Amino acid sequence: MAASTSLTLSQAALSRSAVPRHGSSTTATQQSTSLATLSIPTFSGLKSTSTSSSRAPTRRQVSSTRRRVIANAAVETLEKTDTALVDKSVNTIRFLAIDAVEKANSGHPGLPHGLCSDGDRFVLSAGHGCMLQYALLHLAGYDSVLEEDLKQFRQWGSRTPGHPENFETPGIEVTTGPLGQGIANAVGLALAEKHLAARYNKPDAEIVDHYTYCILGDGCQMEGIANEACSLAGHWGLGKLIAFYDDNHISIDGDTEIAFTESVDTRFEALGWHIIWVKNGNTGYDEIRAAIKEAKAVTDKPTLIKVTTTIGFGSPNKANSYSVHGAALGAKEVDATRQNLGWPYEPFHVPEEVKKHWSRHTPEGAALEAEWNTKFAEYEKKYAEDAAELKSIAEGVFPAGWEKALPIYTPETPGDATRNLSQTMLNALAPVLPGLIGGSADLASSNMTLMKMFGDFQKSTPEERNVRFGVREHGMGAICNGIALHSPGFVPYCATFFVFTDYMRGAMRISALSEAGVIYVMTHDSIGLGEDGPTHQPIEHLASFRAMPNILMFRPADGNETAGAYKVAVESRKRPSILALSRQKLPNLTGTSIEGVAKGGYTITDNSTGNKPDVILIGTGSELEIAAKAADELRKEGKAVRVVSFVSWELFEEQSEEYKESVLPSGVTARVSIEAASTFGWAKIVGSKGKAIGIDKFGASAPAPKIYKEYGITAEAVIAAAKEVC
Amino acid sequence: MAASTSLTLSQAALSRSAVPRHGSSTTATQQSTSLATLSIPTFSGLKSTSTSSSRAPTRRQVSSTRRRVIANAAVETLEKTDTALVDKSVNTIRFLAIDAVEKANSGHPGLPHGLCSDGDRFVLSAGHGCMLQYALLHLAGYDSVLEEDLKQFRQWGSRTPGHPENFETPGIEVTTGPLGQGIANAVGLALAEKHLAARYNKPDAEIVDHYTYCILGDGCQMEGIANEACSLAGHWGLGKLIAFYDDNHISIDGDTEIAFTESVDTRFEALGWHIIWVKNGNTGYDEIRAAIKEAKAVTDKPTLIKVTTTIGFGSPNKANSYSVHGAALGAKEVDATRQNLGWPYEPFHVPEEVKKHWSRHTPEGAALEAEWNTKFAEYEKKYAEDAAELKSIAEGVFPAGWEKALPIYTPETPGDATRNLSQTMLNALAPVLPGLIGGSADLASSNMTLMKMFGDFQKSTPEERNVRFGVREHGMGAICNGIALHSPGFVPYCATFFVFTDYMRGAMRISALSEAGVIYVMTHDSIGLGEDGPTHQPIEHLASFRAMPNILMFRPADGNETAGAYKVAVESRKRPSILALSRQKLPNLTGTSIEGVAKGGYTITDNSTGNKPDVILIGTGSELEIAAKAADELRKEGKAVRVVSFVSWELFEEQSEEYKESVLPSGVTARVSIEAASTFGWAKIVGSKGKAIGIDKFGASAPAPKIYKEYGITAEAVIAAAKEVC
Repeated sequence: MAASTSLTLSQAALSRSAVPRHGSSTTATQQSTSLATLSIPTFSGLKSTSTSSSRAPTRRQVSSTRRRVIANAAVETLEKTDTALVDKSVNTIRFLAIDAVEKANSGHPGLPHGLCSDGDRFVLSAGHGCMLQYALLHLAGYDSVLEEDLKQFRQWGSRTPGHPENFETPGIEVTTGPLGQGIANAVGLALAEKHLAARYNKPDAEIVDHYTYCILGDGCQMEGIANEACSLAGHWGLGKLIAFYDDNHISIDGDTEIAFTESVDTRFEALGWHIIWVKNGNTGYDEIRAAIKEAKAVTDKPTLIKVTTTIGFGSPNKANSYSVHGAALGAKEVDATRQNLGWPYEPFHVPEEVKKHWSRHTPEGAALEAEWNTKFAEYEKKYAEDAAELKSIAEGVFPAGWEKALPIYTPETPGDATRNLSQTMLNALAPVLPGLIGGSADLASSNMTLMKMFGDFQKSTPEERNVRFGVREHGMGAICNGIALHSPGFVPYCATFFVFTDYMRGAMRISALSEAGVIYVMTHDSIGLGEDGPTHQPIEHLASFRAMPNILMFRPADGNETAGAYKVAVESRKRPSILALSRQKLPNLTGTSIEGVAKGGYTITDNSTGNKPDVILIGTGSELEIAAKAADELRKEGKAVRVVSFVSWELFEEQSEEYKESVLPSGVTARVSIEAASTFGWAKIVGSKGKAIGIDKFGASAPAPKIYKEYGITAEAVIAAAKEVC
Repeated sequence: MAASTSLTLSQAALSRSAVPRHGSSTTATQQSTSLATLSIPTFSGLKSTSTSSSRAPTRRQVSSTRRRVIANAAVETLEKTDTALVDKSVNTIRFLAIDAVEKANSGHPGLPHGLCSDGDRFVLSAGHGCMLQYALLHLAGYDSVLEEDLKQFRQWGSRTPGHPENFETPGIEVTTGPLGQGIANAVGLALAEKHLAARYNKPDAEIVDHYTYCILGDGCQMEGIANEACSLAGHWGLGKLIAFYDDNHISIDGDTEIAFTESVDTRFEALGWHIIWVKNGNTGYDEIRAAIKEAKAVTDKPTLIKVTTTIGFGSPNKANSYSVHGAALGAKEVDATRQNLGWPYEPFHVPEEVKKHWSRHTPEGAALEAEWNTKFAEYEKKYAEDAAELKSIAEGVFPAGWEKALPIYTPETPGDATRNLSQTMLNALAPVLPGLIGGSADLASSNMTLMKMFGDFQKSTPEERNVRFGVREHGMGAICNGIALHSPGFVPYCATFFVFTDYMRGAMRISALSEAGVIYVMTHDSIGLGEDGPTHQPIEHLASFRAMPNILMFRPADGNETAGAYKVAVESRKRPSILALSRQKLPNLTGTSIEGVAKGGYTITDNSTGNKPDVILIGTGSELEIAAKAADELRKEGKAVRVVSFVSWELFEEQSEEYKESVLPSGVTARVSIEAASTFGWAKIVGSKGKAIGIDKFGASAPAPKIYKEYGITAEAVIAAAKEVC
């Protein structure tokens, strides 16, 4: 037998087109590129079609020319090829990895070394083996990874960083490295495919039809997040998710026998997966090929292909050893490996026949893409409305005026908990945002996250949009990252109690880093949740996220502020948002506004003149009401008091100096902040002469009003502090 | 059949004695209570033997009279009793739970309601069902939970908070509520037992021999942390861990079918557990009894007893419904349930025969304890050295002068990475601290955590002290909490890269809240780790822990500071510590000291007089060297410069105002801080006229010196800022 499944996988992974991605400019009216070129992918011969002259820009800007998987149809059509050429391709990848790690004197040669015979994927959950991914992109002709990039592995400003980063390197789908994240992202990507296929395919037009491949190692398998996500994948019956488990028995500390002796096969069987074991993962091309075929035949379950490999295969002295996991082989061992595998070439050399072999994917892929384009054009004629929705999701271009769906509140509107107001927003937005999809970690009725017009996304109802994540916060966050990075018009949201961000912070950081615009609906945001006590009451969480780069931390105070937070969150497709929401009822306050929220901090009421209040009272969320009450009292005593809502520190920081000065004039040092949370960080806002009222210890179990009183989070405390600082 | 297994479990859980627990006063010389009364438990008839007149003090002080499990021998000796009485006991517990939740109008009656027939435990992982635990403690005669406490369920200042808290209620072992934590704590408790038994038992004296029981529900089962910990429990063969899985098919969002359809039995089989299924968990006392017997007979594997129950059993209209999970039943349904189960009593009533039945455990337990005391006295004579060590662990009293084992450094000592210095400390402390035990999440060779004189704690070598956690950070943290709370003289440490605290923050918060003195050895603490890139480079993590209550965040700069951090961390048995350590080599600086670290912030060099420097440069960890270099340059230019190490903000905050003024005089507003991390929070230290140099974006993949330069974390930047603010 001689065929090229290892390469067909590459092609599946690489048959993409460049789709300019809109960030916060997401309304139809702002769209600057024609819908036709965006939604109907032009197969670019695996070259980037970025509008810049030769290469996409480096670093952050790169994600604006993000590529997207269209279909895996290419996998099915490749003819068989001879084993020698496959061997040679595999060795090319192997030595590109070895050479790059050697040049950087840093990196993890073990994984690309051991797994390159397994073929390609979309998500390299074992992200430390990213040289495999770079080598494949390079061979496939991606101009994002040229020979010079391979030589710059792990260097400043390169497109080949130490772990795969979607915002650095076109062709990389998601950012991995922290173990377990990638497989959970893959579950999200596969969910997205199943959902879109169910929603938009027609009996006469299968326009969504692709696989999600993932490679994960022992490290990923040990992480709890992987079990969470894989349990859901089994529950949802994600038949087009195919995960390769690189079973090499080596992790950084040595043989996995020292800490990992469970039966992974049996566990995945328990999780509802189909399991295939490829015993010879080093050179068993036929077995791997057969396994993929079998995996595809099983359509109601995800498949785990356990591929037993030798880490550092080919290295005569370091194969099968932890020493190959996280360090360069060394010049001597590189030579010995070259000898052993009969590889006479210079470092970074790609033999001509390998280049030629890979280049033939280009016309094949282009043909397939043209075929798909024709199919979609027909679909668009027949099903105009569906086509428009699908385009909206595929392109991240929202219907014009979507934000008008958000309600506006007045002080006369009866008060409500911001968690309930959040549900109002979700239900208002669901009809106008086709990509809005999400749910809660078994707290839907507490987090108030159900979109009432939809049913549950389940194995047999994948067209629905309420996702039931179960009590799996970390998996939930990473699955949402996968959904967000599948298509820029998806607006995934997920929910739990704010305190349990501690369980999914790993995924939330990756949202921020990888520019995945997930909306985190975090209710029960303070001691205001009452009786459940200190295990459930967040204290340090607001500060902890204010310190995190590229994430928006909102703490809305009422209806208008909840609406405002949603408006910014939906618009921010490249920056995740966290909404900290109250369990308890809050009044609609005078002066709050959607526009104010967009500025992060703004004045809600003020009886001073000339930008010279006697004192500025600053609150967030449920404590803005307290600040407003204190202001009323102080004004009765003749004080000129300004009340400022500080709903998002990040947005305020981004305003002009002039605007900031108009809200917090530097001449006014009499400032009091109140927030039912750690005071950490508030010194910057209230200044050294101001006073921050907050909670710098853990909470307590009691009815909320009692805790507020005992902890001194009261109007009386604000009044007293104001008098102190005035 | 008529016996009382459900009660034998209670007795196993409750046969404890009060062991005064030492906090930071841990040297033998400071010991104020005789060893004999401490180490040889006096069975107190299940009453607290606290020295206070009647009851132990409320809230935080309570943990100083913490109780400890001695042995489960009691379980074996109870005679059978009649079913009617068991029923009545079970109903008593059931209605105490119903009545307390009803009175509080808050709580989760479902679990105690459904599970009270399952008997007792040490760890209620499903912590929301804590009324089960309170009712059992009450029936068992614990004076920590009197009738008045039950009536004060979930009220301010009560001993019956909304979730079980070891620091509030004597008799509660660990703090649970956040799902999955408890089962992982139980793995830690069982590890501790297995370790102590292997180390101290002799062929003629089995002095350590007890079981760890745990109850977990569907929610715990879904959490990744539970899978992590249970995988390790199977790997370690923790045969004396018996977990009851309350399989009631209901979670908050409804039937578990909506998100949880995996086969839990098969998964646990894969993890190496013994599985027993009790099909009638509502009334099948015999089955439960038989299951416990079988579980004990399997000595090489932990056992999961899956107990199928009906949530809200006995409630005619709400049983088997999510509506019973998280809210009071309501007066009408409480009445209906009383009718249905034939319970004629007033709320909170305990029938006389039930009281009597439970009270008989007291003399039985006392007899067993006396037996053990005799055995230990013999052991002490024969094996004095072992007995002394075991006592040290059991009592938290460290050998006098242990801290002298810590090395002292001078600027002439060659520099080293603080992660390597940390390993030096661990290896210096291991011989003098018998309770020091720990390891890494598969990064031992990067975190430098091996104690070289010991082997690995494994199934067949449980007497060893290096623990191999695998890539399971969250499970690792919670297991260490269990070890810490098993015996106050355990000093558990665990390690990973600092950025991966994101994966175990849930457990770390519980360390802080539940006063578990775990030492978190967190290496690769900044962009200084270099090539692995932004997924691996912490930015916001220092700030995020500085905001967390009751945890010490250390960032030592060199040898003396690493030693100082370890000194405080070891002493702090009721406050966890995090040590952020460098990957890169750092010099030993002039002026650093162990004593300085204990104050959190201190001057290392100063050429000013009269406490009036021109400028104060403040650094932590690897950047203290940069501050020192900048000071050298500025002094050459004639400036009076003070350099302050700010190694632990929490400790500095606790110093006297006078001391603080001596380090950071309020008159000196020219201050510059430098730290390769988020500047969030530094405004409080440098003031509004100072300048904080840091990193408020994500890191990058490149060699460390290059990133430092590009990110402006340099002496030049400090000098420029100093000149600006002077």
